[in-house]
Amino acid sequence: MDPSSDYANDPYTWEGLSGWKSYRTLRPFRGMYWDVRRRLPWYWSDIRDGFNYRTLAGTVRIFFINLLPALAFQLDMTRNTDGYFGINEALFSSALAALVFSTLSCQPLTVVGITGLISLFNYTVFAITEECGIRELYPEFIAWVSIWAAITHWITAICNWCDYMRYITDFSSNAFGMYVAIIYMVKGFQEVTALYYESNPMAAYLGVVIALCYFFSVVMLEMIGTTTLFTPSIRKFIADYAYPIATVWWTGFSHIRGHIRDSGLARIPHTRAFYPTTDRSWLVAFWTLPVKWVFVALPIGILLTLLFYYDHNVSSLTAQAKQFPLRKPAGFHWDFFLLGCTCFIAGIVGIPLPNGLVPQAPVHTDSLTEYKDTLTRSKEKDIEPEGSDWVQHSRKVVTATLVREQRISHFLMALALVGFMTGPLLDVLHTMPRALFAGVFWAVGFSGLTAMNITQNILYCLSEKRFADPSDKRTTLKKPRIMYYVFWQMLGVTFSLAVSFTRAAIGFPVIIISLIPLRWILLPRLFTEHELLILDAPTADADTVLASMGGRPTLPEVRMAEEKRRQQGGDGEMGDGSGSGSTCGGTNGFKDDEEKGLEGDEGREEARRGFQSTLQTGHA
Amino acid sequence: MDPSSDYANDPYTWEGLSGWKSYRTLRPFRGMYWDVRRRLPWYWSDIRDGFNYRTLAGTVRIFFINLLPALAFQLDMTRNTDGYFGINEALFSSALAALVFSTLSCQPLTVVGITGLISLFNYTVFAITEECGIRELYPEFIAWVSIWAAITHWITAICNWCDYMRYITDFSSNAFGMYVAIIYMVKGFQEVTALYYESNPMAAYLGVVIALCYFFSVVMLEMIGTTTLFTPSIRKFIADYAYPIATVWWTGFSHIRGHIRDSGLARIPHTRAFYPTTDRSWLVAFWTLPVKWVFVALPIGILLTLLFYYDHNVSSLTAQAKQFPLRKPAGFHWDFFLLGCTCFIAGIVGIPLPNGLVPQAPVHTDSLTEYKDTLTRSKEKDIEPEGSDWVQHSRKVVTATLVREQRISHFLMALALVGFMTGPLLDVLHTMPRALFAGVFWAVGFSGLTAMNITQNILYCLSEKRFADPSDKRTTLKKPRIMYYVFWQMLGVTFSLAVSFTRAAIGFPVIIISLIPLRWILLPRLFTEHELLILDAPTADADTVLASMGGRPTLPEVRMAEEKRRQQGGDGEMGDGSGSGSTCGGTNGFKDDEEKGLEGDEGREEARRGFQSTLQTGHA
Repeated sequence: MDPSSDYANDPYTWEGLSGWKSYRTLRPFRGMYWDVRRRLPWYWSDIRDGFNYRTLAGTVRIFFINLLPALAFQLDMTRNTDGYFGINEALFSSALAALVFSTLSCQPLTVVGITGLISLFNYTVFAITEECGIRELYPEFIAWVSIWAAITHWITAICNWCDYMRYITDFSSNAFGMYVAIIYMVKGFQEVTALYYESNPMAAYLGVVIALCYFFSVVMLEMIGTTTLFTPSIRKFIADYAYPIATVWWTGFSHIRGHIRDSGLARIPHTRAFYPTTDRSWLVAFWTLPVKWVFVALPIGILLTLLFYYDHNVSSLTAQAKQFPLRKPAGFHWDFFLLGCTCFIAGIVGIPLPNGLVPQAPVHTDSLTEYKDTLTRSKEKDIEPEGSDWVQHSRKVVTATLVREQRISHFLMALALVGFMTGPLLDVLHTMPRALFAGVFWAVGFSGLTAMNITQNILYCLSEKRFADPSDKRTTLKKPRIMYYVFWQMLGVTFSLAVSFTRAAIGFPVIIISLIPLRWILLPRLFTEHELLILDAPTADADTVLASMGGRPTLPEVRMAEEKRRQQGGDGEMGDGSGSGSTCGGTNGFKDDEEKGLEGDEGREEARRGFQSTLQTGHA
Repeated sequence: MDPSSDYANDPYTWEGLSGWKSYRTLRPFRGMYWDVRRRLPWYWSDIRDGFNYRTLAGTVRIFFINLLPALAFQLDMTRNTDGYFGINEALFSSALAALVFSTLSCQPLTVVGITGLISLFNYTVFAITEECGIRELYPEFIAWVSIWAAITHWITAICNWCDYMRYITDFSSNAFGMYVAIIYMVKGFQEVTALYYESNPMAAYLGVVIALCYFFSVVMLEMIGTTTLFTPSIRKFIADYAYPIATVWWTGFSHIRGHIRDSGLARIPHTRAFYPTTDRSWLVAFWTLPVKWVFVALPIGILLTLLFYYDHNVSSLTAQAKQFPLRKPAGFHWDFFLLGCTCFIAGIVGIPLPNGLVPQAPVHTDSLTEYKDTLTRSKEKDIEPEGSDWVQHSRKVVTATLVREQRISHFLMALALVGFMTGPLLDVLHTMPRALFAGVFWAVGFSGLTAMNITQNILYCLSEKRFADPSDKRTTLKKPRIMYYVFWQMLGVTFSLAVSFTRAAIGFPVIIISLIPLRWILLPRLFTEHELLILDAPTADADTVLASMGGRPTLPEVRMAEEKRRQQGGDGEMGDGSGSGSTCGGTNGFKDDEEKGLEGDEGREEARRGFQSTLQTGHA
């Protein structure tokens, strides 16, 4: 029934091509064509596969995890753009993106919506327009930024440049994830601080209580999913609905009669349904912008494209990461073209530009995955100091059996967002205390922080090595080397954070993107193949995903090590006067392997598994 | 050098005695005599062993963990006794108890101070005097209650009745611990609620924030001790000083300039050094109480003795629990006599009566224990589903190598308490926000809650049995049976809690004490020997401890099972017509053992170890 094919040998490849045919830019539309051709046969199954309980659970979970941060960012944007982007704009943008991507995209698992970075981007541009004295032209200016971004999106997609996403490794994608998680944590604190300006101090302190309690509730509820409490379905239910449960509970709490209700807690503002927040029509008169400013908008539009190129595609990558047993193929070129379209529409109607949600994307896939808790029994014996008794253990092993890959959950989420744009549901939103969003930021940011390899590696280095599990391949490395690797990642994170709080914030995509060539050119010279095999791994690793990007690339450190080995082998054969030349070279090679202590593929496999299991825990 | 002796065969025993010699009451002072004779030879080593870093760390830790709840209870008592018991009384009482018990007691590890129960007791008596219309006679009345309590303490000690403490099992001591932990949690909430009456609502909400943050800080800091982070000494340092660190930090936080400092947070009240809080002399004119009321005080004094009998001795038991490798002998009779003396002194000077601190007692010993983190390597293999590979594991095994058994830490704590009674240090206390004490209550209560076998058993029953470790002996029991056992414990807890919030609160010691005969008479009829072996264990279990109580008792279920087996054996021999009578009986006995699945001693050992390790984690 299902259309399936061998994605490891996909016809979309640049291997073995020469001459003009091997230049991506010279063969426009090739990636998009194959994306659609690969995915179209699955369209019917994308609908059919949506009718089951898991899809419903996934819808509820992703709806909350999309809506809450979107509202939170909107509060932030409203504050910093003099009210230009309000709640209606945020809902409209989220709904638009969800409608378009759930129906037309190649990767309906990638949830698209409003991110913290676009919020940061929008209000930095706002500050720049203020400084340039064109504050009143902001709507038109940001519209042109969006239009330029749309155009460069289309060019990128048409010229097959999304192929370069296959070069992204955990080195940069985790640095980026770390950066986003820290931004979330900081936003949480900013949100709490803002309470003191937007309500009375008493309400503000009450707000802090609510934010803290919300944060801990979500963390606790999600943790229940990892225990063996209750039955598998109950604990899965609790973990799935952690955000909705905590939101309903603490919203209810904020309405307790007496002290709490009368404290004057700041709540989500009331707005008129379907109208822009400021007094304007939906269509921005972008054609009225003086030509000079139109061209000033161009470089800013390109920066936005750089941001989305990284942000959107990485969220697609994590939504389709290898720990999820996906069968349906990815389509990066087509989706990026589509993202150009939503940029264009969002730009001319004056709403924040949606794109792939980095911390939330894998959560969507995770919530659509059928996990099975199986029992594994093992026997264990102490060997140092030697124990005489075998001890039996039982443990829970979680296996992902199936992902409900479909468009329905994304589409239902879109409908729910449209629903929330109507009057009655806007009233419901108004009941929520603002403080809750600080808790949302902390909860989302915290789960991101703990999932990143930077955190994992720092914790590893802070721990006593003697207690580390021998199966942890990092034990074959020296700690200063691991910290040196972390240092390079943190360099990127720190720079990005540093510019984020200045006017140069719009330039931070350049820093993030520059981590890719850094990894590709500099790191193989600073670290050995063995070190990089353990510490890093390509972010895109499944054939279903790589097919859309022209296949699996060879990592530079592997190529370099191979070259070196070949050279050494050659040296042995040529240089040594005795007859045992080739043997010597062979031994050399063998020793090298021995020192490595593991096979290339296996090592990478191990490292990935470790990382992904933590990712999963972080998000489960 | 060290005086040591064979405590398993201590001369203080009632075994093998008959006639009047076997009646404890008829041989007064026997227990006290042997307590002193056993302990006196260690006195010099009790001082000499106090000069090391661990003793210092223990002093700081126990000082904070004693002082903070004492202050917290004092706040509570002040509120409920119209200011009769204030901060000076609390410090005086703690200092008096620490001075007396650190120098004169047989068990200097048992920390003596102000508990929540005496606070509850004092203000319930206050409420009763108010209802009887003798509000103004409260000081004299409570003095007489204390005098009667002192007298009955002395009688108890002289008549060797502390021997009966050996019948206490985890059934009642954990029910009591649970009751105390719940009282602590409730007090935390009451403290938070009180903030709304004692300061403005803004300060109150800020207080809630401080209380929550304090609680989580302590929990996190103590958790670091259980990880493999940093080096053993650093993580031990952090866990040891969790309370001081959190206290200094959050007290500092409450003084941040601006909103926070200006919020009007309620702080510990300022008082004049060395004077009673109310306008009176230190000596209470107890001789002025009308004779009628003197005799009304008698039964209340007996209730107080019942409370202290249980509370103080259980705290001594837990301070000398088997997981601590203690070498010096216990002395229950002598210490209870001493407690009578402090009751008398405290009574006539009008300060709250000190006694053994239940949740803190094991913390003192724990903080004096030298732990060693050693590495254990093991190999593991999956057997279901069968795995082919051996996996090596490294894990941290914590072993208690030595307890610094001495009087110095207790004595230094006494000096520090005396120091805090002086003017300058009272000023330091005044800087602490009251809200912090809600956090103290929660932190102490929470670690108590998680340590109790009731919580452990409930969590076990809520979890999926298939994932339980086969080495957990509870897997041989049916869950409803475990819950039935928990039910009996919770019955005691619930009754105690129920009366605690009424005027009958002073009667709750009766309920707690009645759990001992319940366990001894009723439970062996409701549960099998096997069940009780796994679910229960004597609280006193080390020979050094049992020596002071006349040796190890035989558990009733063991005796009953033995009788039954003997009877069955007898039946077999007599009843069966065939010649294989005795064999049949033997087989029966064997089958019985098989069904049990474990040997009596081993099972008890296992159950204890599991429980104690959790206890330790809870308190570590």
